[in-house]
Amino acid sequence: MTAARTRLAGVGTALPGDPVDNTALALRLGISAEWVEAFIGTRTRHFALDLASGAVRWSLEDLCTDAADRALADADADPEDVGFLVLATATPDALMPTTAALVADRLGIDQVPAYQLQSGCSGAVQALALGSSLLSAQGRGGKPLGLVIGGDVCSKHLDLAQDFRELPPAQLVNYVLFGDGAGAVVLSGESGTGRRARLAAADHWLSGLGRTPGQRVEWFGAADRHSGRPAVTEDYKAVERQVPVMAREVLDTLLATLGWTSESLGHVLPPQLGGRMTERITRTLRQGLEWEEVSCVAETGNNGNALVFCQLQRLLPRLGAQGRAVGIAIESSKWIKAGFAVEATT
Amino acid sequence: MTAARTRLAGVGTALPGDPVDNTALALRLGISAEWVEAFIGTRTRHFALDLASGAVRWSLEDLCTDAADRALADADADPEDVGFLVLATATPDALMPTTAALVADRLGIDQVPAYQLQSGCSGAVQALALGSSLLSAQGRGGKPLGLVIGGDVCSKHLDLAQDFRELPPAQLVNYVLFGDGAGAVVLSGESGTGRRARLAAADHWLSGLGRTPGQRVEWFGAADRHSGRPAVTEDYKAVERQVPVMAREVLDTLLATLGWTSESLGHVLPPQLGGRMTERITRTLRQGLEWEEVSCVAETGNNGNALVFCQLQRLLPRLGAQGRAVGIAIESSKWIKAGFAVEATT
Repeated sequence: MTAARTRLAGVGTALPGDPVDNTALALRLGISAEWVEAFIGTRTRHFALDLASGAVRWSLEDLCTDAADRALADADADPEDVGFLVLATATPDALMPTTAALVADRLGIDQVPAYQLQSGCSGAVQALALGSSLLSAQGRGGKPLGLVIGGDVCSKHLDLAQDFRELPPAQLVNYVLFGDGAGAVVLSGESGTGRRARLAAADHWLSGLGRTPGQRVEWFGAADRHSGRPAVTEDYKAVERQVPVMAREVLDTLLATLGWTSESLGHVLPPQLGGRMTERITRTLRQGLEWEEVSCVAETGNNGNALVFCQLQRLLPRLGAQGRAVGIAIESSKWIKAGFAVEATT
Repeated sequence: MTAARTRLAGVGTALPGDPVDNTALALRLGISAEWVEAFIGTRTRHFALDLASGAVRWSLEDLCTDAADRALADADADPEDVGFLVLATATPDALMPTTAALVADRLGIDQVPAYQLQSGCSGAVQALALGSSLLSAQGRGGKPLGLVIGGDVCSKHLDLAQDFRELPPAQLVNYVLFGDGAGAVVLSGESGTGRRARLAAADHWLSGLGRTPGQRVEWFGAADRHSGRPAVTEDYKAVERQVPVMAREVLDTLLATLGWTSESLGHVLPPQLGGRMTERITRTLRQGLEWEEVSCVAETGNNGNALVFCQLQRLLPRLGAQGRAVGIAIESSKWIKAGFAVEATT
């Protein structure tokens, strides 16, 4: 963990269409809305596809372009000032070209590097860490800004043709937990004009040595697309058991690295697996402290690599003149810890 | 383009099974071996699947682990000295967990960051550039080395059940051009003990603004796996026309950035689309100069993110005491230029 010296110059998000509430979702899937509310704790989510017809209305490229446009506008910045682009996702529109390259094209960005990270829930933090490293390591041809984007279209795994009533709860969870969306931040160097806040640290660490993956998501190519293998498998028991403990470890590591006291924290952005799970994690993190929780999962659903950006957008107006905040993401696929810290610019 | 200050401490590659020659491949696909030889110019390739039975014998994780093991052995380095891992691929085993995290587990590497880049032919260079940035930007908790891996199992797109004799040549090309494999290098800082060579520069640039993608590779999830959409589409005419020109531009940019003369170059590692195509590109690059071409595609097939590492492994023993080399990769999916430069350590 190395302290970053990067400013958050702007933030933007994009959620597709109107929120889909539990009543509408449950009606479409033929399941109980009360079960979703009680067991998952997520009230609404947004889908890139039309739930009635199954038609895909937004691509990940569309959502990421909108989020990046808004982040650039928030930073009062021009695409020409962007010296690199990092995009994190678990659900790229295609294997090639990267969504990163296509979003750059839509934004009018060219002749700069564009990295696309394949990543789950820790991806947005990975992208922030990478963006911060790139800003500090390289001149980027005099261009002062970096564009960091995260997003997912989880509904690419939602097969509306199946009979959801036949599924056991452990599989049904996958269809009520997730949502679609994208988010972006514009990064500038320490001497830049970023007017919002400083990214004081961002990093991630593998923590899965010898541990069975908690989640696996397959893709199918020409050779195996007609195989009967399931696309998504999860061990939610392991996730429930391990994520709160890992989240606490990330919080402690961040505070120790930065020399911040727990009492100096104004806000915490906890992992956002689902509404109920986030409540449990927050209890483990709080330990009698008075910081304000910044969550969005109950309204957005778990939209993967977009979530941290949705949380950041809620945090920044509340940060205050001396504010400090810590954000935490845990990827249960192979147990990756990720965390970042934000403080008000003085 | 920023000059890198990184040493190549070790290199390793892994190619699955025995080489498959044109006679064996043509027999299996029911096509003409002479056509493959004359039109593609690739003589052998390696497949992670058994061509007779279709059984998958190696995963990308297997190949990347083997290549990384060999690179660590070549560097006389221990996994405990590795402070980060970067893995580039167009064909990850799954969307989650990342192959990067699973390879780290196999190597016994934990508690460090692992980035997985989604990338086509420019990915190995992207990974080298990113590894170099991470080494220079961060202390990595005192760990002196970075591990950079690239690999692809292109045969994940090879549907052996289809009738290849019915395919037009433009589609057939996809099945005779590609191969599987992985490669890795161990990076150390400028003051490290890297005994092979210095990575003098590595970078990539989007160059596709407003240009139609030259290649698209789809993945299918639960919702669309039974759609009839093709998995791979290419515009080889555009590739043939544009790649030689772009390769020349990368060479000129690298030489200008480093202040190297064309005459000082001992070796060039050209883009490796296929044997014939590489011959054409090399003619465009050579312009009367005497440098030695370092290619492997005629023996390995186009194994994507592995190729640059296969070329590097051939280069290093030949580099000589004062040697300089330039490597070039072009990703035609959305027209990305990538290049790197290597010089002997003094």
